[in-house]
Amino acid sequence: MKVLIDGVRKDFRPVWMDGKIVKLIDQRRIPHEFKILDCKNHMETAGAIRDMVVRGAPAIGATAAYGLAQATFEVGKQGSSFFLKKAKETLASARPTAYDLFHALNYVGGRIEGKEGIEETQQTAVDAANQYADESAERCRMIGVHGEKLITDGMKLLTHCNAGALACVDYGTALAPMRVAHDKGKNIFVFADETKPRGQGARLTAWEMVQEGIDHAVIADNAAGYYMQRGEIDLVIVGTDRVAANGDIANKIGTYEKAVLAKENGIPFYVAAPSSTIDLSCPSGNDIVIEERGEDEVHYTWGFNETGKFIKVRTTPKDAKARNPAFDVTPARYVTEIITEKGLFKPERIADSL
Amino acid sequence: MKVLIDGVRKDFRPVWMDGKIVKLIDQRRIPHEFKILDCKNHMETAGAIRDMVVRGAPAIGATAAYGLAQATFEVGKQGSSFFLKKAKETLASARPTAYDLFHALNYVGGRIEGKEGIEETQQTAVDAANQYADESAERCRMIGVHGEKLITDGMKLLTHCNAGALACVDYGTALAPMRVAHDKGKNIFVFADETKPRGQGARLTAWEMVQEGIDHAVIADNAAGYYMQRGEIDLVIVGTDRVAANGDIANKIGTYEKAVLAKENGIPFYVAAPSSTIDLSCPSGNDIVIEERGEDEVHYTWGFNETGKFIKVRTTPKDAKARNPAFDVTPARYVTEIITEKGLFKPERIADSL
Repeated sequence: MKVLIDGVRKDFRPVWMDGKIVKLIDQRRIPHEFKILDCKNHMETAGAIRDMVVRGAPAIGATAAYGLAQATFEVGKQGSSFFLKKAKETLASARPTAYDLFHALNYVGGRIEGKEGIEETQQTAVDAANQYADESAERCRMIGVHGEKLITDGMKLLTHCNAGALACVDYGTALAPMRVAHDKGKNIFVFADETKPRGQGARLTAWEMVQEGIDHAVIADNAAGYYMQRGEIDLVIVGTDRVAANGDIANKIGTYEKAVLAKENGIPFYVAAPSSTIDLSCPSGNDIVIEERGEDEVHYTWGFNETGKFIKVRTTPKDAKARNPAFDVTPARYVTEIITEKGLFKPERIADSL
Repeated sequence: MKVLIDGVRKDFRPVWMDGKIVKLIDQRRIPHEFKILDCKNHMETAGAIRDMVVRGAPAIGATAAYGLAQATFEVGKQGSSFFLKKAKETLASARPTAYDLFHALNYVGGRIEGKEGIEETQQTAVDAANQYADESAERCRMIGVHGEKLITDGMKLLTHCNAGALACVDYGTALAPMRVAHDKGKNIFVFADETKPRGQGARLTAWEMVQEGIDHAVIADNAAGYYMQRGEIDLVIVGTDRVAANGDIANKIGTYEKAVLAKENGIPFYVAAPSSTIDLSCPSGNDIVIEERGEDEVHYTWGFNETGKFIKVRTTPKDAKARNPAFDVTPARYVTEIITEKGLFKPERIADSL
């Protein structure tokens, strides 16, 4: 992905390795500051995962992969296999619910198993971590290549939340087709839903659009229907956290609303889904349990005050109650097609993609 | 409406007259502080209107009516008709786009015209202003009486924005049926859409619910569809700024989204509309021009910081663009019925209500 530094667009990933250092874009400061954090050893890398310097399952996975590669340079007099086993445990426990993290650690761990010489182990681990990150980025690039065919010059698109490059090593999922179209010189305009309560669209999608130089507007979630009704949105692309076997998809709260509005207004509604999010063991959206998060995400809004300090303000009265479902389920009948790294699939035929 | 003071619920209106003093709830401090502002003369009352101590067309109208009554006590040696003419101009120019304000001034002005004695003029003016406020409140109460019949014990309702008592002398429009149902002892639950970008639901509707003791939850605008889909919303009632002759309605941005979602989920969608908002000179929603407000309402969120100071925080990156339509149009086909002070009307038969 591009990042605009002193007026020049440079290529960046949210995580990479430079010698023995794991480098991370500090996502806690986005969109108000672009800062690279250096992790000098695997303990610091695990700490960065824990402290949410990095977010998004694929990006967390790549960070863990690099962290394990980094650990091979820290092996001292003690037996290397014991040290690396402990390092793997440390990294795995940094964000214990992130499935991609375990997958990444096993990917790198499997490659170095049985390697004897320390230098061979190190080179193998670094190569494996880079390969893991590259494969992750390549899956997103292919989502972009397939999805880009849906986008014609002059199109106006809508997206919800942030299924972007920051979370995904590169390209993003829902944003990948937009990046590829823009890189090909197609003229596009992206409406980014603010995505309350946490505002990932306002913060992260808007930031990615500014960095790439893609023409855009952040809108209140309430305004998406207005622009659809007026014929000002040609195509909707969103990401997903999980695709059920019948093609129902779970995604950030509000996705269902936009899907219903798109259908009502005859606008195609696409879901970008890397294979890793397709869960055939889950028969339908009814089987997906929706997490309800704390009330305070509704009561308070976080942002930067005039001195650049990141603070929260309370918008509701102090005795008010709130409810805060984090995700919703969009039934397959509202989804035009699902874009995976292998191509476009009707939601009810999503199993064919695996 | 009820206001909770030291644990006791007392009856309040946003504006009333006490001797020669016009008293106003300072709505700029709601929901974080309940403060009454005393306006000692009509200049101060005009200043309060200008400074948005009071908001909502009916409440502004009543305030202007009281301001003109107040001016009759300030008549000095100069000719009273000249002084009152100037006072009327001062009040009229305090918020020049508020139609109800002119109507209220003419209502009081017409009653005192030709009155000779100063004491008779004063009494007539105060009576007229009280009558104006009472009639305004009574129209809302009747919306409540008619609308309450739709509400059964145990119902869960959704409302958008704030069509409440603070704006309306008393009862509110969309909130009037809920108040009447609650007063009758019906057990209800109100979902209040946050209503971004300005958050009137989170700030004002939530405040009114807390004051009345009505069980409620503020939700992100994105979550309304989720609760509808799960069968947790039985009825939607919203206010309106304007009803066109064909029954299309204009209201706060996002109303159209909720109407489409209600229809998709088979949930009745009602609009509370005092006669004054019905505009037969406007043939349809297509003829209503939608105001687009400044970008900053999307970029910034206002709220109270930890020390109780009302400040804004920026949520979007500094080079991001935003768009901000303030209202949208909900076509009549999504509206189950319109509740006016005269009863329930199918949207396409709204002219019958006049």
